[in-house]
Amino acid sequence: MITEKAAAIIERVREENPLVHCITNYITINDCANILLSAGASPAMCDALDEAYDFARISSALYINFGTYIKEQEAAAMAAALGAKSAGRPIVIDPVGCAAIPRRIGILDRLHELAGVSIIKGNMGEIMALAGKKAEVKGVDSDGAVPGIEETAAETAKKYGCVVAATGKIDVISDGRRTARVSNGVPMLTKITGSGCMTGALCAAAAAMARDGDEMFAAAAAAVSLMGIAGEKAAVKANLPGSFRTALIDAVYGITGKILRGMGRIECEEM
Amino acid sequence: MITEKAAAIIERVREENPLVHCITNYITINDCANILLSAGASPAMCDALDEAYDFARISSALYINFGTYIKEQEAAAMAAALGAKSAGRPIVIDPVGCAAIPRRIGILDRLHELAGVSIIKGNMGEIMALAGKKAEVKGVDSDGAVPGIEETAAETAKKYGCVVAATGKIDVISDGRRTARVSNGVPMLTKITGSGCMTGALCAAAAAMARDGDEMFAAAAAAVSLMGIAGEKAAVKANLPGSFRTALIDAVYGITGKILRGMGRIECEEM
Amino acid sequence: MITEKAAAIIERVREENPLVHCITNYITINDCANILLSAGASPAMCDALDEAYDFARISSALYINFGTYIKEQEAAAMAAALGAKSAGRPIVIDPVGCAAIPRRIGILDRLHELAGVSIIKGNMGEIMALAGKKAEVKGVDSDGAVPGIEETAAETAKKYGCVVAATGKIDVISDGRRTARVSNGVPMLTKITGSGCMTGALCAAAAAMARDGDEMFAAAAAAVSLMGIAGEKAAVKANLPGSFRTALIDAVYGITGKILRGMGRIECEEM
Repeated sequence: MITEKAAAIIERVREENPLVHCITNYITINDCANILLSAGASPAMCDALDEAYDFARISSALYINFGTYIKEQEAAAMAAALGAKSAGRPIVIDPVGCAAIPRRIGILDRLHELAGVSIIKGNMGEIMALAGKKAEVKGVDSDGAVPGIEETAAETAKKYGCVVAATGKIDVISDGRRTARVSNGVPMLTKITGSGCMTGALCAAAAAMARDGDEMFAAAAAAVSLMGIAGEKAAVKANLPGSFRTALIDAVYGITGKILRGMGRIECEEM
Repeated sequence: MITEKAAAIIERVREENPLVHCITNYITINDCANILLSAGASPAMCDALDEAYDFARISSALYINFGTYIKEQEAAAMAAALGAKSAGRPIVIDPVGCAAIPRRIGILDRLHELAGVSIIKGNMGEIMALAGKKAEVKGVDSDGAVPGIEETAAETAKKYGCVVAATGKIDVISDGRRTARVSNGVPMLTKITGSGCMTGALCAAAAAMARDGDEMFAAAAAAVSLMGIAGEKAAVKANLPGSFRTALIDAVYGITGKILRGMGRIECEEM
Repeated sequence: MITEKAAAIIERVREENPLVHCITNYITINDCANILLSAGASPAMCDALDEAYDFARISSALYINFGTYIKEQEAAAMAAALGAKSAGRPIVIDPVGCAAIPRRIGILDRLHELAGVSIIKGNMGEIMALAGKKAEVKGVDSDGAVPGIEETAAETAKKYGCVVAATGKIDVISDGRRTARVSNGVPMLTKITGSGCMTGALCAAAAAMARDGDEMFAAAAAAVSLMGIAGEKAAVKANLPGSFRTALIDAVYGITGKILRGMGRIECEEM
């Protein structure tokens, strides 16, 4: 059911080529643009302060990522968020590093206050940090589970009135009412920079295709599963990180709704 | 004739390794540096405001690209343009996104006023926008021609006193007097980010090697054709976007004047 | 002896995954992050002014690279250097372009004054420039030696009280007392952007693992040799620059202490 919705959403991305406005870090900005193109979306990385408000208004979704957050990006993100809000566009935020840099929780809160947010995508440590909890990050690596992550994701989703996607070995997605677990992916995704950022960018493309608030939950699952499947396919081609990164962009290009229906491992339950 | 001139120009790039000063967006800045190195030029991405004027003076050409135009780049570009002018260096501008973000037309006009411009390289929608016209962008995709693009390119070339390269399925280059059509290239070039930016960077390397204003026209044709041929060669090796991007940098490395003479599809006529 | 120490240091990087705080140029920031991941380190590119001081304090080493040095990076680098100093972390500086842009020597001097520096990594022209000398850059390319580079590296090491790594065909490393020559590497490393920046980033990862000031010398040799060996391995797989860049990231991933012991060509003598 949720897999079917997720597949339909990624098909719509390819059909409608949504314009995704990204204000994202300069480490993986190229990867984010290329993964969006591979998925069928149309990326535009517009972070000039004078342009961000208007550009967000003509885009289909806004993606804000805090990876390298220089002052102008910080200001542009606020302007863009207001633009997206005024045009009714979904906003996806990746609060990169907020577990280590608490100031970024404040930045997320400010954006949320100004404009609301549709999806928050972070790794488990970041999502725990948003709820004021500390994750044993080594625990994430070893057994793939952070104790309490499902409850925390649900809590955080309720607090911000949005969908929360907490990525890890098994990704957890919550809208405060339902929880989905996505078990796609491979360890090699942690050996390159940008896997998380690209997942966030794909969340924005998927969010642009969500027809209502209810579909936002499936949109997050679609993006997270798409990235995981791409990782699985890339790992078949390449077992070293430079080649794997190239194979990942290649893989997304070929993933259709049908493939997601076949390979997606998304489980969903009401809480 | 023009093909011969274009081939000679790309040979000179390999022999003389011109230093190309780039102020360009952070999405594809790495691709621009690598494509310039592959073509034999020496790239330097210097956008610190305190350095841009002096650095432009010791460079052989200046490339300005508006992709992500943060305030410091905007100021540095003005300083660099003044430096390039004072040293008599060609300036190549890629007004990325000016069809969707009209403010960027004003930025181009300011740079033109301050320092003049040798080549404007944009996609057809952007070149139409510079002339105050709207392009049916879907039309570009479907049949490879924007109605009126040749006249508009010529008009724009006259207005700015420069060469205009309007890229599309068939690229159109005009100096206001002559029009060249370059039919190299493959559709896969639109599936990765940076094809346009890299073409602009190559225009600057070629412009550095133009011996006079007349050769600036051939320089633009050389760069546009070089990129298209590289796309054709890359498409033989790779049919997925991640691999294609790698193959594109590889391909440029091997393209000699002789190969451009053989594979270049450049037609030229007086208007 | 020094090779054994270098091998032990790169093994420690893989075991301890040091967090390396980078303030580096946007051209090769992605390459620096990926090479650090491939070597087993944990990269974090934090150049927001409000965050740099605190982040440097929780990192294991700080890498500052002047490639594209926008105002906020310049200020953030000063804050980060103070943070690193207060926490006793090593600082590695790559004064990219200081031969062509003398202002950057002043920036290095300011950082040195504020916080001290553990390793300066530059190409031979840059190291000569730090000593107020001019290198015949063409000489570097042709015969692999800049006259006087060993004395100049030693002089510069004494002046700044640090280790100096001057890269070229044969890399020269000095701590003012000893000189090491590293003869790993291949010419293809000069055909892609980022080889120097990645070497600097690896110096920071290695510096994080140096147990005392004496090991800082071996740390620089370890990083320079690791990069050179990776180049040699990549050149076996790929002889074109796009593919070579991918193969380089791949190669670092597999280089163990044992491989460095076997392939490292590091000679050391007292001066």
